[in-house]
Amino acid sequence: MDEDRVARSAQLALLLEVSAYPKPGNVDRTHDFVDTSYEHFLASSVAVYPVLREAAVRKGRGVGELIRKGVEESVKWQHGGNTHFGALLLLIPLAMAAGASDDCATPVLRSKANDIMRNTDVEDAIELYRAFPMAKVRVRRDVAELDVMNEASIEEIRNRQLSLFDILSISAPYDLVSRELVGGFEKSFRYAALIADFRDERLRLNDAITHAYLNLLAEEEDTFVKMKFGADKSRYVKERARGIVERGYRRGELEEFDHELIKAGINPGSSADLIAAALFIAILQGLKVY
Amino acid sequence: MDEDRVARSAQLALLLEVSAYPKPGNVDRTHDFVDTSYEHFLASSVAVYPVLREAAVRKGRGVGELIRKGVEESVKWQHGGNTHFGALLLLIPLAMAAGASDDCATPVLRSKANDIMRNTDVEDAIELYRAFPMAKVRVRRDVAELDVMNEASIEEIRNRQLSLFDILSISAPYDLVSRELVGGFEKSFRYAALIADFRDERLRLNDAITHAYLNLLAEEEDTFVKMKFGADKSRYVKERARGIVERGYRRGELEEFDHELIKAGINPGSSADLIAAALFIAILQGLKVY
Repeated sequence: MDEDRVARSAQLALLLEVSAYPKPGNVDRTHDFVDTSYEHFLASSVAVYPVLREAAVRKGRGVGELIRKGVEESVKWQHGGNTHFGALLLLIPLAMAAGASDDCATPVLRSKANDIMRNTDVEDAIELYRAFPMAKVRVRRDVAELDVMNEASIEEIRNRQLSLFDILSISAPYDLVSRELVGGFEKSFRYAALIADFRDERLRLNDAITHAYLNLLAEEEDTFVKMKFGADKSRYVKERARGIVERGYRRGELEEFDHELIKAGINPGSSADLIAAALFIAILQGLKVY
Repeated sequence: MDEDRVARSAQLALLLEVSAYPKPGNVDRTHDFVDTSYEHFLASSVAVYPVLREAAVRKGRGVGELIRKGVEESVKWQHGGNTHFGALLLLIPLAMAAGASDDCATPVLRSKANDIMRNTDVEDAIELYRAFPMAKVRVRRDVAELDVMNEASIEEIRNRQLSLFDILSISAPYDLVSRELVGGFEKSFRYAALIADFRDERLRLNDAITHAYLNLLAEEEDTFVKMKFGADKSRYVKERARGIVERGYRRGELEEFDHELIKAGINPGSSADLIAAALFIAILQGLKVY
């Protein structure tokens, strides 16, 4: 597929995701965090365009390098900290897969993206480790010999000949984005279909996105929430989201939940990343802004 | 200047402009029009990226063609009607000027953009007339022999050998955007400097944009408002904006004015286009999202 169509689809996904509201706990068009504002997300979405375009041209090699480049561009264009690290991890291999084929049907795109991840190498892993400190992303640091904030880890990766796929397999048990990347993007494609279904039911685009996000919160404990606030809190967020979904996404409940999470500093960032990936797939497959 | 830097600067300008709020009478992140929503503006800003990039590569020839292409891409990616017609008219020659030089100082960029407009030809004029019907833009139709909605006008343009510059000179007396294009982008550069000054005074980026917009409303009667509601109404809007500026942009007054204009369907669209051009220049000259 034409590289500008791929890059625009990915960029539009980032913009629609951050703009959708209310999206309990995360930055949206109606509120900023202390250090990271809605404008930081806009600037970052603009910044990464050439890298998304390059991913579509490359069609498979250099996943790690492009993730690192994407983070570099993002932090050059805005100083709001981590905006799109997790989203880029998901979007780069998907953009490569879309660039490699004119067929965006789920089985084709999914299998291609999966192949790309399985074919990553040691250099891809090292590039990811170079991107981490730039992105100012919050990470678990208990796998001491591969601590992403430690320069020595790069040596260790090289010695053990670990690919990006290997590295992400280590974090997959506790990290939602890693799990997607080594598990064949199962949720990204499933939520793309859910967003498309919501649109078929004549839901406003904004609501199709926020409802999908709520469903994901209800299904999956968010990595960031668990890491920062522990298992009890992340289970609570999940149960609370489930109740809202079951009672039919009442606006008042959504806004109250949003207010509660924002006040407590609980931001389910990984869930937002995954919804951006789902939107990208949905747009490639025909979702329109009509 | 690198084409991706030019295109990203222009795109970021479009996104920051439409996101700034409250921007009395226009679409912003907090409200939509009936047919044109905030999401339509997001999708249109994404859609035009490759055309903005091409403008920076072309460095001067084909202004009309690129405006027509920009409108084509915009309406392919969203069905919200006229989002960026006026803005594209201003951004395309500015992007060409920026692409032609590494120096973005006002005298260099302004003189280059001015040369580009003065060197437009009959083909540029014809392309503009092709773009009009696609953009669904509201226009004055009292210059009968050159009615933009009449196919025969293209023949007339060819017979009289009118360039794009000639055509815009005809509409300049009553049209703010045309006046900018034939008058050397005077206001675009002046408002770019004003936005930069507001930022130097430590205003939030959002407020720097809305204050500049209010200043423009207070200085200049908006083309759309005058055309749709007449001279009395457009003078009223101007006086009202002046009062708000003089009393120091009180939030309550801004919101009340916004509410009043939205309710009456008064949208100063040309002023928004000009602020997008000013933002583009300001970003090229160093305005940051920090």
